[in-house]
Order: sequence, then structure tokens, then C-alpha cells
Amino acid sequence: MRKLMDGHNFQDRDWLFGLMIQSKLFCPKRAGGRVFISPDYNQTMEQQREMTMKRIAYLLDRGVFDGWLTGKGAEAEMRKFALHEVIGMYDHSLAVKLGVHYYLWGGAIQFFGTKRHHDKWLRDTEAYMIKGCFAMSELGHGSNVRGIETVTTYDANTGEFVINTPCESAQKYWIGGAANHATHTIVFSQLNINGNKQGVHAFIAQIRDADGNICPNIRVADCGHKIGLNGVDNGRIWFDNVRIPRENLLNSVADVLPDGQYLSAIKDPDQRFAAFLAPLTSGRVTIAVSAVYSSKISLAIAIRYSLTRRAFSLAPNEPEVLLLDYPSHQRRLLPLLAKTCAMSFAGNYLKMIYVKRTPQSNKMIHVVSSAFKATLTWHNMRTLQECREACGGQGVKTENRVGHMKSEYDVQSTFEGDNNVLMQQVSKALLGEYIAAKKRKAPFKGLGLEHMNESCPVIPSQLTSSTLQSSRFQTDVFCLRERDLLNRFAIEVSQRQAQGESKEYAFILSYQLAEDLGRAFSDRLILQTFLEAEATVSDGPMKNVLGLLRSMYALISLEEDPAFLRYGYLSTENAAAVRKEVTKLCGELRPHALALVSSFGIPDAFLSPIAFDWIDANSWSSVQH
Amino acid sequence: MRKLMDGHNFQDRDWLFGLMIQSKLFCPKRAGGRVFISPDYNQTMEQQREMTMKRIAYLLDRGVFDGWLTGKGAEAEMRKFALHEVIGMYDHSLAVKLGVHYYLWGGAIQFFGTKRHHDKWLRDTEAYMIKGCFAMSELGHGSNVRGIETVTTYDANTGEFVINTPCESAQKYWIGGAANHATHTIVFSQLNINGNKQGVHAFIAQIRDADGNICPNIRVADCGHKIGLNGVDNGRIWFDNVRIPRENLLNSVADVLPDGQYLSAIKDPDQRFAAFLAPLTSGRVTIAVSAVYSSKISLAIAIRYSLTRRAFSLAPNEPEVLLLDYPSHQRRLLPLLAKTCAMSFAGNYLKMIYVKRTPQSNKMIHVVSSAFKATLTWHNMRTLQECREACGGQGVKTENRVGHMKSEYDVQSTFEGDNNVLMQQVSKALLGEYIAAKKRKAPFKGLGLEHMNESCPVIPSQLTSSTLQSSRFQTDVFCLRERDLLNRFAIEVSQRQAQGESKEYAFILSYQLAEDLGRAFSDRLILQTFLEAEATVSDGPMKNVLGLLRSMYALISLEEDPAFLRYGYLSTENAAAVRKEVTKLCGELRPHALALVSSFGIPDAFLSPIAFDWIDANSWSSVQH
Repeated sequence: MRKLMDGHNFQDRDWLFGLMIQSKLFCPKRAGGRVFISPDYNQTMEQQREMTMKRIAYLLDRGVFDGWLTGKGAEAEMRKFALHEVIGMYDHSLAVKLGVHYYLWGGAIQFFGTKRHHDKWLRDTEAYMIKGCFAMSELGHGSNVRGIETVTTYDANTGEFVINTPCESAQKYWIGGAANHATHTIVFSQLNINGNKQGVHAFIAQIRDADGNICPNIRVADCGHKIGLNGVDNGRIWFDNVRIPRENLLNSVADVLPDGQYLSAIKDPDQRFAAFLAPLTSGRVTIAVSAVYSSKISLAIAIRYSLTRRAFSLAPNEPEVLLLDYPSHQRRLLPLLAKTCAMSFAGNYLKMIYVKRTPQSNKMIHVVSSAFKATLTWHNMRTLQECREACGGQGVKTENRVGHMKSEYDVQSTFEGDNNVLMQQVSKALLGEYIAAKKRKAPFKGLGLEHMNESCPVIPSQLTSSTLQSSRFQTDVFCLRERDLLNRFAIEVSQRQAQGESKEYAFILSYQLAEDLGRAFSDRLILQTFLEAEATVSDGPMKNVLGLLRSMYALISLEEDPAFLRYGYLSTENAAAVRKEVTKLCGELRPHALALVSSFGIPDAFLSPIAFDWIDANSWSSVQH
Repeated sequence: MRKLMDGHNFQDRDWLFGLMIQSKLFCPKRAGGRVFISPDYNQTMEQQREMTMKRIAYLLDRGVFDGWLTGKGAEAEMRKFALHEVIGMYDHSLAVKLGVHYYLWGGAIQFFGTKRHHDKWLRDTEAYMIKGCFAMSELGHGSNVRGIETVTTYDANTGEFVINTPCESAQKYWIGGAANHATHTIVFSQLNINGNKQGVHAFIAQIRDADGNICPNIRVADCGHKIGLNGVDNGRIWFDNVRIPRENLLNSVADVLPDGQYLSAIKDPDQRFAAFLAPLTSGRVTIAVSAVYSSKISLAIAIRYSLTRRAFSLAPNEPEVLLLDYPSHQRRLLPLLAKTCAMSFAGNYLKMIYVKRTPQSNKMIHVVSSAFKATLTWHNMRTLQECREACGGQGVKTENRVGHMKSEYDVQSTFEGDNNVLMQQVSKALLGEYIAAKKRKAPFKGLGLEHMNESCPVIPSQLTSSTLQSSRFQTDVFCLRERDLLNRFAIEVSQRQAQGESKEYAFILSYQLAEDLGRAFSDRLILQTFLEAEATVSDGPMKNVLGLLRSMYALISLEEDPAFLRYGYLSTENAAAVRKEVTKLCGELRPHALALVSSFGIPDAFLSPIAFDWIDANSWSSVQH
């Protein structure tokens, strides 16, 4: 089961778990006869940042980052994903700090740059000799990157670009690494050549020298204390006529010749902009996947606690009841467990299509990574919150991780694209496919919409348990929802346009259907990845458990999305049958709960005292006098 | 409007706001030409605790706590509530630390004690000469207080009680004030007299001397770093044959004579136990109300930000759109605004029935405070999360409060009774009323269930806008839901009993209906308090806005609770009409958003930089060099 969920690079993962557990830098603490490792969060921001750097140095030394930028092919990318996931399971700050350097800075050099940049920067970046950051967001522009205000012009006399921050809202903001450690940055900026606005481009600029002194014409300030991720030094940058060599333009998409002539194979600035951002999908891939691992940690802790913690007895002189034996407690945790398993498969699928990407699959990857980034990070926040409450007061102790991770992971729902904005983009893309298919009067092809070419699924009026647990019914009802919502969305938007609204505004007004549709797309695809994973397993007990998990995933989605009742995909009788089946599945999954969280493959040291003997861990003898 | 929402003691509130703004102890910081006050959360737990104590000493000196325990009557209680609310708006740690001392320790002396305790302790407690804590929870028992394991016996030879912690799970846990500062504690313990188990009783024990040294036979340990509230020193306590004078039993309900004879006016241990806990309702009252103020702060910040922050333009060269002009952004924030106003009235109602309590109203107060504590704190967490995301990255900065408050307030959903457990108690109480009414074949009387004596409301098949906005329809549909759910719940529980389940277990199995019913009760009562508040206002623009808010509160509750569709209280056509009306109401409330958050009466200094000129607040000139 672990193989199915982790998917790849098991030995690499275990090796890195071991490296961290061995070192004092990862703050091992004894409790209840076990060792747990976790950062000391009772530290100031400054101390946490320093610890992050020390941990990076240790991992660098051990060769963890070897091949992260110079490695070639899908295998190297999968190893990097696996190791990065393991790092995130220890501390999100550490993962984000490394993500900015290797995925954003390094990825920008790889994907936006050409040979001259690769030769000059990749090796030193991999060796952390130079420390990169990624200056895209500004105070005034986050999700709307196209609206950034930083301006770069070209001086043909010296062959240099000149970068400026023209106003306070153009200051670069939230730039991870900028406040303390980064030596270089990617700068996203409007490029103006001889009075022509060529749109957003990316440049390399140095911001600190090797001794850590800020470079001339650069100003840097700290973003200050955050609700989490205080191990990352987010900063702000102002550019005052900063001059950089012409070669520092990352020129994979467009270039400027020494005489100032602007060249690009892509004429349309919108398409050029899209081409610029496409390779950054890796950021969303890692965010989505790390959200699943965070959910796994919290569920492993909360479920283990619920198997040792008791509360209230049903009759006098009877033992108190284990938390997980309460049907209500099962209902709180086991659907989240099933969803997390489903999303684990979805994450593996996303990584797979990403590393096997082709120019043709870019659009699909963009849409799927947007949908999964939003869906998986929202799911994670909800799981963390439920697990924290399910652990009661113990969930509030930092050492028990569950509650604390909420602060560390909260940022995921808005960084690298606000989740709501991403989901709107998903629906927009689906609508685009819809309109294109109608226009060319051809079947749907792409984004998994092929099911719309079939006849509309019919949901039986009487749902038996075996129908409810069948993959056929589950697929049908998910496809029905997606199909109908897409039709409704298309109709509503076109009606609004017919009433005189612009297409843009019509879309904005139809946000509720857009949200519903985005969810329908995401859920349908997750179910599909689940079925694909299930198909690789041969008949036996594990396949049976997978079937239960998949049914729970599907049915809880039916239960939770009011669209099924609202739009009549399910009758109230059907909805009652679904609810009853969910309760039944809770009981059926209950005996497997411990085995399932064990199959997450998280070493005990990465869980917390309440996951094991929490009475002993809290005993007087464990108090350090 | 502010008068209606704050309800009482406006001058006292303003005076205390002023006291805090004036003092350096409250960490004033300049940003964007304004001063903001907020604790420095980039401090270790130890530093935060020290600052809490300094702030208490300052407020004590200024007379803030005068009359908090020696004052008499409803007026003194309302003043205490008002000042405590204002303190919580600055920092939840400060409010909780004071709450433990004045409401829990002080309240226990007042309510569980008799004249001898009042004379001895209340004056010194009010003057903070002694510092009290409240040792109820144990490692092994939180919500289930009746199951605590601490044991107290009586030694007639010396006239002393002897308190013991018999095992590790009996250690007192989460005791606010115990780790560093408290000199005395209330100890909840099983009382065994001559081998007779008399159930849980409360005693006074000293744990530190005036110099802060731990007393003999007491052991204390720290609970450690928490995800929030680090300004409160939560600790653990073990008792090893701790001897206290017989007079230290808080004897309002039961007493032990010098010879060891046990006396109580209440023979049934269960009823005795209930009588013990009843007066502690004040804790739940303050939690519920403080949750509303937290929601107000976050909405004031998020809505003000959404009125200055722009993102994306609808057409080239058009200015970007203000966030609050997006229908989707209105839909995120304005329903929460309406709910928060509604819950503000609910909070005032709760305070009012509490300070006017009589022995007859105790049950009602217990049920209402349980329902509102759960509903208002859940609402607060949801509001904070939505506001944090609505503020994008700025919501992650600690200085902007919204994101940080999540960690500080999270504990509210599980402390002083887990919300789920409380809501089950609400439904249990409703079921009790139901069964009693059926048994005595008399009309319903109490807990607001009188509406069940009327004929069942009928919902029109076509809902017009004016019907949807009418208080009649809103009341009808809320009553219909409560009535039907209570019927269903009673039937389901009795069916399960008929199938051989114990009453207790039948109840546990019917948790979903219990949850739905608890929500229905809570919503119906909140709507009622809204209507009562509205009735005090004479016709005019303010009454119109109140009407919009009330309709939004009612309709968003219809939209969000799937029970309306699931059980057919609304047809799908009706549900579509509700959804449309919510969107319409968003547009109608949009022009009033700023006025509404201003009417919360929160001084600017208690908001944050993004609520005002956030560009200026982030300018280079504001950076401290």
C-alpha cells in the first residue's frame, strides 16, 4: 500500500528520513520512550531562519540536492520531488526555502533561460554557491502578474538593461530569501523598448555580494513576522536604475539584440506571457503534493490518538469508549482519510504528467495543476482543522504538530495563484473547450471531457449499497455533474453576453457555477486517478480496502457537494441512501484505520507524542528538571 | 448602530481602549501615518508571558478590575463583560489569563463557595494579591469532567482534606496560570468519605507561596509552547498527599462536618454535579461573545482592504476592479458580515439572560450558552479563515492580525466543552423537553419550543423576493426545520431503542440528526434575537439596513445548511430563488459595507495597516533603518 501511495523513490525517501533523524540540527526530543524530531518553534523569526540555513547546509553536504538542477530526465525529476516531499514533512519552511531556490530561481534559469544561462548558473545554483530568489509578486500585484509595475528599459549605448521600481506599489513583495540570504534574483518586469511595451519579461539581477552586502541601487526590507513559515526570510526589493548586462534577459521566448531590436517568435504579448509562466507549473505541483503529505501526517496523528484516547462511558462502571469507536468521530476522520488517499493518487498522476510533459500536454498540465493545487490545499487546511479539533486540547500543543501545521500551510491557499482565481481559470478553460467543440461541431477532445460525447448517464431511482459502491455509478454521477454544470455555465455566460455584458464580466457574474464546475472537474479527475491506481492491484484484501476507500471518496463527495441535490443529480431519496452508505463505510473502514495510516510510510519520529503512549510522554518522569 | 451592537457600557469601553492606546506596554507601532497597537508575537513564550503580567499590572493600577468580584448586581456584571471584551480585542492571551483568574477562580469562589470563602478570598482576588487558577481538566479527562481521577479523602483526626493524584492520567492539565504565576488553585476532585464516593467536588489549595516557590507536596510542570495563547502559562499539577483545611471545601452544594459526616441538600450525585457546573456558564458566555468581537475585527480589516485593493481589469486600459466590487468577493465577505451582526445580537441576549439569571432560567441558560458557544466560535474560525484568504498574502503577515488571530482563537472550539459535545447536549436537552411534553400531554413550554404548539408552517411553492425578505417566512422556515428535525430525532432514537440499543447508544448513533438539530435550534434563536433588536429601532435608513442584514443572515443559513434540501423544507426551485436572493442582497449590502464595519466601534489602532493606506504603510520611508 505504501508503494501505491508514495509511488516512487522509496529508498531515497528512507535515506533522507534517516539523515534528518540522525542529526542534532533537526532537534530530536525524547518523549514516552521515543524520539521525535521537529523544529523548535518557540524561537524568534531570526533564530528560525538561521536554523533553516544550517539544515540546508547539512543536507547539501550529504548530497541531498545532487542532480536537482544538473540531473536529466524524468527520473531525476521524480527523485527531486520525492526528496523535497520528505523535507516538507519535517518543516514547511525548509521546503519552501529550498523550493524558492531550486524550483523557482533554478527553474526560471532552466526554463526561461538558454544555454548561456544554464552554463553560467545551474551548477553554482545546485551547489548553493549562489542563492537565488524569485521576484515576481509586488505589493500591488499578486495573482495578477500581468499588471506588475516594475519597468525595464534597454540602453543600447552600454548594452545594458535598466530596472526601476517606479512607485511604492511596485516594490517586490514576499520574495522568499530576499530579506537575508539571497545573492541573486529573477526580476519580473515590464519591458519597454524604444517606447514599445513588450509586456512582462524575466531578468537576472544580483542583489547581494558574496559577503552578503546589498548591491548598489538595490534596497531591501523585511516582510516581518508571519503566522507561519518564519524560517523563510521573505523580503521586499526596490530597484533604482539597476543596470544589468543584456545577456541577463532570460531569452527562451524573446530576446533583445545589442542594438535594441526586439525579437520574439511569439507575436501576441498575451501568448508570450503565457509561455513565460507555463514552466512554473512545477511550483504548483510541489504545493499540491506537499499538501497531501501534510494531511497524511495530521491524520496519522489524529487517528492514532483516537485509538488510545477514551472519553465517556455508555453505562456506569463500563470502560470509557475509544474516540474512534464513536460513529461521529469515524465520520469526522475516515472520510478525510479516504480523500487523502484519493488525493495521494491524484498527486502521483500530476507529477507523472508533469515529468512526461510535451508541448501538447502543457495546457492539460496547466489546468490539472491549477485544479489540484486548489483542491488539495483546501482539503489539507480542512483536514488539519478537523484533526486539530479531533485531538482536543492536545491539538493545540505545538509539539503535537497537527495544530501548528495549520499556520505553516495556510499560505498554500493563496500563494502561487489564489485558489479561487485558479479554479476560475479551470472553469474558463473548460468553457473554452466547450465553445471550441461546439464551434467546430466535433466531439470533445481533451481535458478529460470525452465523456460528454457519450449519452447522458442515468442515475437509478433506487440506489442499493452495491450500486453505490460500484465504480460505474460513481463515475456516472461525477460525469453527470460535470457535464450538466458545464452546460449550465455555458448557457448562463452566453445569456449574460446576450444581455449586453462583456464576456469577461459575464464570466465574473457566473462565479457560482464556475466554482461548482471547477470542483466537479477536479473530483471527477481524482476519482479517475483512483480507479487507475486500483487497477494496478491484483485481487485480494488490499484491493478490497482500496474499493472501500474509493467508495468513501466518491460518496462523501456526493454528500458534501450540495450541487447534487440543488441541480437534481440525486433525488432526496438517493441522498438519504448516500448518507446511510457513508455511515456504513465508516464502520467498514474503522478496522483498517491503523493499517492505512501506517501505510503512509511516515517514520514515527515525524509524528508526535500523542500518536503513541501519550500518558507516558506526559509523565512526571519525562519532565526535565 | 454601534449602540445596538455593543449593547452596553460604551463609555467604559472607550476609556479602556484609551488606556491601552496610551501605554508603551501595548507596543504602539507607526505605519502609514497611524499608530497600531498589538503584542509583539515575534517573542518566545516566556517573553509573551512576562508581557501579559506587565499589562495586567498596568490595568490593575488604573482600576480596570475594580468591582469585578466585589461589585454587586447586573450592572457590575455587564461592566465586567464590556471591559473583558475590550481586553480580548487587544490580545486573546491577556483576556484568557484574566478570565481564568476572575471568571474561573473568582467565579468558583463566588458560586461554589459560601460566606467564609467570599470574605477570605474575593477582595484579595480582585486586587490580584493572590493569583488563582482552576484545576479541572486532567490529562485523561477534558470534556468528561465527571470521569476525573484526582481523589480527595477526609482525615477527621486533623480536620483536613487530603488530595492525591493517583496516576499520571490524573495530573491536572492545561491549567492556565499554573506554570508560572498562580498562588492558589481550585481543585476538582472525586471526594471519598469513609469509603463512600460522593462524586466531584471543588476545593481550594495553595500551590505557591508569596515569593513564587512551589508549595510542599505539589509538583508543577509546563504545558509548553502552543499554537497560540502563548501569553498564558498553562501548566500541569500533581498532588501528593496535599493537606488542606476542611474549610477549603467549596460548600455551597455539599459540606463535610468536622467529624466527617457528609451533608448535601441534593441527594442525587448527578444533579449535584450539574449544580456544581451550572455557575461556570459565565466562561462560555465570555467565550461566545469574544468570538464575535474577533470576527468583527477580521471583517473590519478584510472589508476595508477590499475597498482599497484592486486586482485585474475587465478590459485593457481600464482601472483594475476593487476587490469588493467582485460579486464573488461580496459573496465571501458580506454573508459573514451579516452573520456576525446577527451573532452580536445573540451575544447580547446571552449576556442579558445570564446576568438576569434565576434558578428557573438556569437550564435555558445552560442550553443557550452551549449552543451559542459552539455556533459563535465555529463561525469565528470560519470568518477568520475566509478573511485571511480574502486578504491574500497580506493576511499571512502577523501585523495584519486576521491570520494570526486564527491561532489565538482556535482553542475556543474545544475548551470549556468541545463544541461537538456541547451541541449534542443541546439536542439531548431538546429531546428531553420533547419527551416530557409528550409524556405529560401538555404543550411545549421552554427552550423556545412553543412554536411547536402551533400548526406546522407551510412554505409557499413560489418564493418572491419580498417573501424571502419577510421575517414571517424566515421565522417559519427556521421553525419548520427545527420542528421536523426534533420529530425525526425523537423517532430515530426511539426506533433504535426499540431495536434494543441503550438510550445512550441510540443517541450516539443518531449524531447526524443531533448535529442538524443543534444547528437548527441555534439559528432559530439567533434570528429571534435579531428580530428583537430590530424591533427596538424606529423606521428609517438604519432599520432598512438591519432588514437587509437579517434577510442575508436568514437566507445564507438556508443556502448553507443542506438539511433544507435534504429533508424537503425547500424545493430545488425554492433553493434556486434563495441563491438568487443572496446574490441580490450582496449587491444591496455592498454600499453599506464600510459603514457597517465602522459601526463595530473598533478604534483604528486595534485594526491593522491593510485596513487603511497599506501602500504608504509599506513604503520605503516607513522602513526602520
